[in-house]
Amino acid sequence: MSKRVPLRVFAPASVANVAVGYDILGFAINDIGDEVMFKAGNEKGLILKSIHYNKGLSKDLYKNTAGFAALKVLESLGLEDEPIHMELYKNMDIGTGLGSSAASAVAGAFGINEYLGRPYTKQELLPFATQGEQIADGSYHADNVAPSLLGSFILIRDNATLDYVKLPIIKGLKAVIVHPKIKILTRDSRNILSPQLKLDQHIQQSGNLGAFVAALFRTDFELLKRSLDDCIIEPQRAELIPYFYDIKSIAIDNGALGCSISGAGPSIFALCMNNIVAENIAESWKKLYSDKGIENNVHISDINTEGAIIS
Amino acid sequence: MSKRVPLRVFAPASVANVAVGYDILGFAINDIGDEVMFKAGNEKGLILKSIHYNKGLSKDLYKNTAGFAALKVLESLGLEDEPIHMELYKNMDIGTGLGSSAASAVAGAFGINEYLGRPYTKQELLPFATQGEQIADGSYHADNVAPSLLGSFILIRDNATLDYVKLPIIKGLKAVIVHPKIKILTRDSRNILSPQLKLDQHIQQSGNLGAFVAALFRTDFELLKRSLDDCIIEPQRAELIPYFYDIKSIAIDNGALGCSISGAGPSIFALCMNNIVAENIAESWKKLYSDKGIENNVHISDINTEGAIIS
Repeated sequence: MSKRVPLRVFAPASVANVAVGYDILGFAINDIGDEVMFKAGNEKGLILKSIHYNKGLSKDLYKNTAGFAALKVLESLGLEDEPIHMELYKNMDIGTGLGSSAASAVAGAFGINEYLGRPYTKQELLPFATQGEQIADGSYHADNVAPSLLGSFILIRDNATLDYVKLPIIKGLKAVIVHPKIKILTRDSRNILSPQLKLDQHIQQSGNLGAFVAALFRTDFELLKRSLDDCIIEPQRAELIPYFYDIKSIAIDNGALGCSISGAGPSIFALCMNNIVAENIAESWKKLYSDKGIENNVHISDINTEGAIIS
Repeated sequence: MSKRVPLRVFAPASVANVAVGYDILGFAINDIGDEVMFKAGNEKGLILKSIHYNKGLSKDLYKNTAGFAALKVLESLGLEDEPIHMELYKNMDIGTGLGSSAASAVAGAFGINEYLGRPYTKQELLPFATQGEQIADGSYHADNVAPSLLGSFILIRDNATLDYVKLPIIKGLKAVIVHPKIKILTRDSRNILSPQLKLDQHIQQSGNLGAFVAALFRTDFELLKRSLDDCIIEPQRAELIPYFYDIKSIAIDNGALGCSISGAGPSIFALCMNNIVAENIAESWKKLYSDKGIENNVHISDINTEGAIIS
């Protein structure tokens, strides 16, 4: 058994769907994310001792995405009896659409793996983190978990097998994110969606997804811009988010490459080709929501390239 | 006016849909295709003088994909009165699923443009060729026309604007194609398709399309293989093609990267990572259809990189 050293890890927030990749596309952002601390415990097994900043979350390992992901790693190694003390620093609010539950799950899986002396590669942790995330919304999909763990843009070819592709990043690409502080549960935001779509919508959206992937490989901002158009999910969810179309117009008018709902919302993201565009959008977004009396956070970020790290 | 020199052009056959890109993905193949000859005429306007090898096709410019595409180019230049004599060498059968009408349309547009001294770039001919193709099946889509004109794998981001992306080719990639000589009209093959699909199917197919595009950029045969799986169109059309699933099993068992219906069928294609695999599949396919008493043509090809050429 390798020597156990206490440590704290950070897993970033992420933007899923990204207009054209519902349930299969996401990217990680900087600065925002959750942290988990692991150290030796004095009771048998893993114990989630405390959760900072969010008293509402359960410390039951089977009901906490970070705890469950860590537990699954331990079980796979036959180490579930090892006395380990875990603390979750829940820096992110729940229900923002920025992969809060995924960040916790990733931090749990990544942190316990580092604590144990790295028995798994980072890539091998994806199923554990995805099982953790599954606790939050009931479905098994890795479009938040994979970018939070691995960084960059990630395309999930197949959620069942977690076969994914890490996509290249275009230098200079910036994300602007606004979180209007209203509550949408992922579960509700999923339920609003029609389980069917038209073949024409599928054709349109697929063309845009394929072009989006090609644009990243070709470092082609113009193609990226033309491809960032969601004809399936956004029209159904926009009504859940106050002033969504005003926010989107601001982004496009200021030169954003694209703007859509982050994950299940209510956060909204825009992708921009440089920081000046991003700052103009951030400022106008803040003003709009503040003028309307809606509390909000606005954040500008590069695309996070590292994913989960020791903090 | 530039000097007119008689010429003959060739436009290749193509495989559309390619399992994961219904109406938006196609590639061109070698050796099979249609030809059009242009020379000065002795009557006012463009005249489609003769059609070789297929007496059933109309010589009316408004009912012939090659003639209509050429006419559209002439009209756009105000040259519709110039006396031009056109002959179509219809080498391909109709209704094979190998882009026969598209090859004619491309040869018409490309040929007249060359004859006129190249007023348009090859890329600029895409709308004219697509209008020609539209005569054949009524819908405006470029997944056969674009690869026939430009070569390689082409992804159509948006059929309405003909915004496309030329995708890279992996060296060594081979296509095997079998045409069982039964008749399916594209129109019928379209009508069999449900106009709706499940959101889950869309997610699955999109993941595969995105991964397919990434695989070409990464020259990743394994990813290409995992991505070539059609959960939407193939299951609906397979019943139109005799022994489709036997043919597919032969391809996969022999190591094909993937196998599905070419365009609207009945032709079937397999992609292979080298010529030995391709030859084994070709031989077994020929044997199966011949044993069952179904007349057939089998063809092995590199991915055509040039598209339409002067022949």
